[in-house]
Amino acid sequence: MPAVLPDAEYRSRLREVRGKLANTDADAAVWFSATSIHYVSGFEHVQTERPVALAVTQDRIEIVVPRLEVERVETVDRIDAVHHYFDYPQGRPIQLVAEMLDGLGAETVAADADGAPGVMGYEGPALSEFVDVETQSWVSRMRWEKTDAEIDLIRESAEWANLAHQYLADFTEPGAHPATVSQKASMEASRAMLDTLGDRFVENVRANGPAFAGYISADETALPHGHTPNQRLERGDVLVTGASANVDGYGSELERTMFVGEVSDEQEHYFELMLEAQTIAIDALGPGVPLSYVDEQVWEFYEEQGITDLAQHHVGHNIGLGGHEPPYIDKGWGDYDHVDDDDAEMQPGQVYTIEPGLYTETEGYRHSDTIAITEDGTEWLTYYPRDLDSNVITE
Amino acid sequence: MPAVLPDAEYRSRLREVRGKLANTDADAAVWFSATSIHYVSGFEHVQTERPVALAVTQDRIEIVVPRLEVERVETVDRIDAVHHYFDYPQGRPIQLVAEMLDGLGAETVAADADGAPGVMGYEGPALSEFVDVETQSWVSRMRWEKTDAEIDLIRESAEWANLAHQYLADFTEPGAHPATVSQKASMEASRAMLDTLGDRFVENVRANGPAFAGYISADETALPHGHTPNQRLERGDVLVTGASANVDGYGSELERTMFVGEVSDEQEHYFELMLEAQTIAIDALGPGVPLSYVDEQVWEFYEEQGITDLAQHHVGHNIGLGGHEPPYIDKGWGDYDHVDDDDAEMQPGQVYTIEPGLYTETEGYRHSDTIAITEDGTEWLTYYPRDLDSNVITE
Repeated sequence: MPAVLPDAEYRSRLREVRGKLANTDADAAVWFSATSIHYVSGFEHVQTERPVALAVTQDRIEIVVPRLEVERVETVDRIDAVHHYFDYPQGRPIQLVAEMLDGLGAETVAADADGAPGVMGYEGPALSEFVDVETQSWVSRMRWEKTDAEIDLIRESAEWANLAHQYLADFTEPGAHPATVSQKASMEASRAMLDTLGDRFVENVRANGPAFAGYISADETALPHGHTPNQRLERGDVLVTGASANVDGYGSELERTMFVGEVSDEQEHYFELMLEAQTIAIDALGPGVPLSYVDEQVWEFYEEQGITDLAQHHVGHNIGLGGHEPPYIDKGWGDYDHVDDDDAEMQPGQVYTIEPGLYTETEGYRHSDTIAITEDGTEWLTYYPRDLDSNVITE
Repeated sequence: MPAVLPDAEYRSRLREVRGKLANTDADAAVWFSATSIHYVSGFEHVQTERPVALAVTQDRIEIVVPRLEVERVETVDRIDAVHHYFDYPQGRPIQLVAEMLDGLGAETVAADADGAPGVMGYEGPALSEFVDVETQSWVSRMRWEKTDAEIDLIRESAEWANLAHQYLADFTEPGAHPATVSQKASMEASRAMLDTLGDRFVENVRANGPAFAGYISADETALPHGHTPNQRLERGDVLVTGASANVDGYGSELERTMFVGEVSDEQEHYFELMLEAQTIAIDALGPGVPLSYVDEQVWEFYEEQGITDLAQHHVGHNIGLGGHEPPYIDKGWGDYDHVDDDDAEMQPGQVYTIEPGLYTETEGYRHSDTIAITEDGTEWLTYYPRDLDSNVITE
């Protein structure tokens, strides 16, 4: 299994971008977003206050970077020319972008934004002070459907997330500290992943490793975005876990509702309702299915059960280079003028998290699985067991 | 030592914001940025595709949040009213912001942006479709100077960063895997921090703990933003470390150039040049000192030594709620029309990272210390030893 996106993927993306560019009055396409630049060119960097801008014409790919990115960007062969400024604010990055565009003969550009993003305190001129700018969000839309090669990476991610999650369960016991259990599980899974993939793992290595698992526990689970509390685990605690792994920038999402040692009748009740809601959503997935239909099916179940007040969010979102990506599984999708009818239906290549959650005043219950839409159905990428017995941690 | 910002800080920030608001034609100030909302109101959340908007008038503080943030935001007493939509895209968040502003009698607002940021694929209408919008960046500027209470948190962060860094050095040896050393050091320091601070540690707990230390090694150090390589340490490797800890959202930065087991003459040569450059920068710091002066002093030293080609970035940046914040120590600061003369000089309460780096074709050398500007000089917040002998790891 490869752990890096093949070069052909970038050729294909560039062809698609150039096709879109040919349908505009613009002479060049420009991106300031780090994720979009990674997607189009394969050059990966951390977005900071120092602007980076990629320009694509029908025959050239050029880039503006700060001095500290020069050596890394020069390893990306498909970029024809690298222009650099020393640093920000001394370097006048947008003026340099304008000079690059002038050299490319581009007087009108289709850009993802009218200037660099205001990250970490960056302030600077609009690009439209120098050239005519039309805005486009081509990459955002292109990312909705993943190729087979992208899904391979997400599948690989799901395998290491599963291992991290298994370690998380193994290390959990009454009296353990959640932060320590998370670190140990993440450490063991990251090491197994790095040792197994070896040279095939090439990108995005965080200092503490590419695999992660952790959880929130007890009353923090009542919040969908709760924090890991600074308190040791006790018998009867509910856990809402999360696990992922970064494979050449791509991630997956695995979440489970688990119990430490024992389960009360009330906890079992809400767990089974949550599990049924997730099953209803998963059963509803497929190519051509309206996004709103899936969310509505779950909502109807909540209404039947009289538990709509326990819901705090929609069913799920896409995942890939971003942890959350559109399209979202949401009742509101399709109500917007700017959304095409086709865009409000699931398509092969889209990769969804399915995670309807229930939240009482004291506890929360949520599984999340990562599932790809295929030509004729779905493929589960995560595969940790979902049933109650498998999610009760006993000594 | 408190590990949480006192309530008086928020009262003071609100007073300052309301003073600025009184000097405009606007009826309310509005923020969409998660960090700014945290800074003004004390409500902390993860920025996603679901917009959050805070509105402040002379007598009210109201907020729009997605359903999943309701319980958390209601714990923040200083917010007078919470409005929520269910989720995005179904919830029409900007329309709800407009309704909130209408209820506040605000027809003109001073906002940090004309709509919610395009994070995680969010797309939505401009706020100016509903009310008159002037843009302001008050909070960005207010964050330049930290109060004593904020510096207390950064000082506390620096202590735990130091512990994480000590563990990092302790666990480093030839044959060790950098990812595992990082995880172990981060785990031990996080546990010590959580166990020591106990209930005084209340916010921003990442699943794997608040303290972090890690490094890049060998040829990856030639890149200022190198990745941790997937290869075990060898005798003679250079390391560029990084350590921090999150205390109620505030961080510090500690970086050291270290050597595994032995140091070559060439490595010692560049280490000592880097150390002298850092010392020159630190000696130049102080209230009223032009930002560009500090960067120029270091550059003059590089010119004297004939090593300007080994520099890839300016001397440093501020740190606080953000990992990089303005003002930056940069030769270009002060050349801009929109920068006041006072803004191009160091002021008491600013907290700088001092990190001039040298990068050969094969290795990099950089220390970073976090240093506060005081009324009459400076205060070092990081304190790990800087000299060569202290940074050679021997068995």
